Amino acid sequence: MQKASKIILGIDPGTVIMGYGLIRIKGAAMQLIEMDVLKFSSKQDAYERLANIHHRVSQLIRTHKPDSFAIEAPFFGKNVQSMLKLGRAQGVAIAAAMHAGLDVCEYSPRKIKQSITGNGNADKEQVMKMLQHLLQFSQDPKHMDASDALAVAVCHHFQQSNMLPSSSSKVNGWKDFITKNPGRFKLK
Amino acid sequence: MQKASKIILGIDPGTVIMGYGLIRIKGAAMQLIEMDVLKFSSKQDAYERLANIHHRVSQLIRTHKPDSFAIEAPFFGKNVQSMLKLGRAQGVAIAAAMHAGLDVCEYSPRKIKQSITGNGNADKEQVMKMLQHLLQFSQDPKHMDASDALAVAVCHHFQQSNMLPSSSSKVNGWKDFITKNPGRFKLK
Repeated sequence: MQKASKIILGIDPGTVIMGYGLIRIKGAAMQLIEMDVLKFSSKQDAYERLANIHHRVSQLIRTHKPDSFAIEAPFFGKNVQSMLKLGRAQGVAIAAAMHAGLDVCEYSPRKIKQSITGNGNADKEQVMKMLQHLLQFSQDPKHMDASDALAVAVCHHFQQSNMLPSSSSKVNGWKDFITKNPGRFKLK
Repeated sequence: MQKASKIILGIDPGTVIMGYGLIRIKGAAMQLIEMDVLKFSSKQDAYERLANIHHRVSQLIRTHKPDSFAIEAPFFGKNVQSMLKLGRAQGVAIAAAMHAGLDVCEYSPRKIKQSITGNGNADKEQVMKMLQHLLQFSQDPKHMDASDALAVAVCHHFQQSNMLPSSSSKVNGWKDFITKNPGRFKLK
């Protein structure tokens, strides 16, 4: 069950900019692989953008072969329409991850800050400083969405390794779910 | 390009009950194949439910091999949290359809009513009566979600066959999108 090293993909999902952060866990060591953002043209129609999000998240997964997929779950939003769009963007990203058989977990912004800095109300700069310390890098990220995504990945690692009762929802891909729930799929 | 007959899958997506309606179009004739609902246990955790939605929509697609996938897009909701959940449910359903290479279109509730009854403010009963007339069936549906989904499918047919300037967003699956947009997939 236990692999020598484990890769975690953190995603901060948006409809126009989607941050991602990849870390490698090897024993007690945690290493930054990459953090960046995927940008989606706001001129694309909604479905082209969803197709694009699914395609590029799948591409990230194929390139880096992560073991887990952790996503930030916002608990507020500007309005119901923007939340519906955000939900759809998250839905296709989650579908891409589940299709690849990855663990999928989500964490609230507060949980992420709490896990990294010890303070659920920490500001973005405090979180950033702690990430730089933990992962030993000094450059400032070009996009906050990239460091937010990195924070989700690190939070996931801490939650997993602390073996705390997880506050996240989790299922290990479609196949795992179907295997575990053979009786659930009768139509009607 | 033109097939002898065409199957449209309409979906009224919810997080606990997801209505679906399937119609076959052959020349000028329109025929009801099936309408029903998929139920998802509210006891399942959020990710199990998303996995379940993806799995069962994929199963519907494999069973009936529709050519198009039409979805109702709500423009209001109780609160931002429920819209995020609804968006995620729609996102995984859309991902399942796109993955299967289907056309994906969405229509507003008003557009659906307008298209079927000629009145954007028609009530559910008027829509139902018109559906029964158009598709020549008499039974009342057990679930309104099933007839809502059927209405989306019929609306899609009318929009396509009228060759009206479509008010829906459309992309023909990932592969079509990638073929049409070869330059869009450079990372960064």
